[in-house]
Amino acid sequence: MSVLKATAVACANIAFVKYWGKRDAELNLPANSSLSMNLDRLTTITTVEFSPDYDDDLVILDGREERGETRQRIVAHLDRVRAMARLRARARVISKNSFPSGAGLASSASGFAALSLAASRAAGLELSQRELSILARFGSGSACRSIPGGFSEWTAGSSSEESFAEQIAPPEHWDLRDVIALVSRAKKPVGSTEGHSLAPSSPFFQARLASLADRLTKAKAALLEKDLATLGPLIEEDAISMHAVMMTSRPPIYYWLPSSIQLIHEVQNWRAEGLEVYFTLDAGPNVHLICQAADQAEVERRLRDIEEVLEVIVSGPGPAARVIEP
Amino acid sequence: MSVLKATAVACANIAFVKYWGKRDAELNLPANSSLSMNLDRLTTITTVEFSPDYDDDLVILDGREERGETRQRIVAHLDRVRAMARLRARARVISKNSFPSGAGLASSASGFAALSLAASRAAGLELSQRELSILARFGSGSACRSIPGGFSEWTAGSSSEESFAEQIAPPEHWDLRDVIALVSRAKKPVGSTEGHSLAPSSPFFQARLASLADRLTKAKAALLEKDLATLGPLIEEDAISMHAVMMTSRPPIYYWLPSSIQLIHEVQNWRAEGLEVYFTLDAGPNVHLICQAADQAEVERRLRDIEEVLEVIVSGPGPAARVIEP
Repeated sequence: MSVLKATAVACANIAFVKYWGKRDAELNLPANSSLSMNLDRLTTITTVEFSPDYDDDLVILDGREERGETRQRIVAHLDRVRAMARLRARARVISKNSFPSGAGLASSASGFAALSLAASRAAGLELSQRELSILARFGSGSACRSIPGGFSEWTAGSSSEESFAEQIAPPEHWDLRDVIALVSRAKKPVGSTEGHSLAPSSPFFQARLASLADRLTKAKAALLEKDLATLGPLIEEDAISMHAVMMTSRPPIYYWLPSSIQLIHEVQNWRAEGLEVYFTLDAGPNVHLICQAADQAEVERRLRDIEEVLEVIVSGPGPAARVIEP
Repeated sequence: MSVLKATAVACANIAFVKYWGKRDAELNLPANSSLSMNLDRLTTITTVEFSPDYDDDLVILDGREERGETRQRIVAHLDRVRAMARLRARARVISKNSFPSGAGLASSASGFAALSLAASRAAGLELSQRELSILARFGSGSACRSIPGGFSEWTAGSSSEESFAEQIAPPEHWDLRDVIALVSRAKKPVGSTEGHSLAPSSPFFQARLASLADRLTKAKAALLEKDLATLGPLIEEDAISMHAVMMTSRPPIYYWLPSSIQLIHEVQNWRAEGLEVYFTLDAGPNVHLICQAADQAEVERRLRDIEEVLEVIVSGPGPAARVIEP
């Protein structure tokens, strides 16, 4: 029997048009299509080995054996791969993030993208990028966007087969930067899964969905034209729209910290001073500052002057999820 | 000729269900009905004297002669009173706030309520409370709620005659407290008039309006039943709903400061610890903490421990606008 082992690496991604709320929780179909950029410095590297010698699945994340819910979610994903490969063997999963997990930095996106690729390859499957994206989506919705490289669109779709991400431009298309201002390393108070399920309770959820098709079309066009002056305001608008839905859910979810609002104001001040930079926030308090490569150093410098910013992490457009030698 | 002079005092008010966006800008008809409590410690005292000896209207606010837009708005209001009284004489207006103006503490509400009463009385008019509320509404929408005492409902109405505030409970009904955490004395970046005009540009504005009738009915019932556990969450929900509309307007308006979010979190922490207190924010960064009289001292004490809180101002339910001896 050949060695059933593979290692894969995948990037996190930052959404310019975000996914919040599900159309179908079981299939993990999103309520809306979304648009994102892979982040080359936020990666997860995952090794999966299936072996008939293992009694049970073992999951080690960042050097610590996982038990409970996190392990269960990963085991469920391994089960999907085992079902596809008609494999019974248990697995060892060893995974390592290049960044703090659970702080709204989309560790589940890079995590499930890397896991999908490593596990399917270890199980002997050669999935297409589309199949991989669908598989990753089952693990964590936004993980499907971490399968293709560069800039991706996740088409919501109305069935599982239709709901996957595709590259709309390669990493070389545009050297955008995501300069992340980390203002908290704490685990977020409400996880994304719970948050998604609360989204429809917001009186603004339907209005958000109604406004999204137009925003996505415009954002995609601006991205293809490398027009940050058009794309930037759409990115900000979408982030605020999502957080407005979160804060008006029942119960409300307040992901922002004082430093989040401080940075939202700073970005606007800096822009008024001529620095072309825009903000976005995922389901967490950290602020992503989007700018072009030429402005990165200045954005970084200004962020490092702000006491509340614990760490600055800069990413460019990252590659597709890929198999590597361990 | 008799002396055409009168002095009136009026309270500011805090809305539990807020007014944001206009149905008719010329008549100052609001897009929605609202619910408020007068604030006994935030008052404006205004003396108006009409005299054929005056060449022009003179407006002195907080000891400073006003020129420009503020004066124009007050002169326009005097013109309304002169038209009603068929009076030509120019006026001297001397007005004093008990609190900083322009910091989102609704100085225009107490200001135009006091001006409406003082000017109409000085002009020899004896207006009913309804007529006064309509008159005040032309000066500043929320001023119409500062005419009746205690707790008021402003019915939006579809004509000027239908759009006025009425008392739904007197000040003695319920000793609620508004403990204001002043976090900024700066003039707000976007005035209410401009803000109201931007409201319809938010994709959430119609959804906010659609959710308001139900919230107002529930909030009014809870207020009449003195049920803070029901009223409080509705107050918070409405404030967040309004700020979500503001932040998603085009262009967006961000009234919150870092300290605003800090206090939103604190109020939730304190409530989790058993202190029954709720937050609301008007068109500005200051946070109003709503509690019952028995909890006021503790809320105040905790606020005074927070460095970012510049000043704490406590109000109970205030009386109707009234004529006083100067």
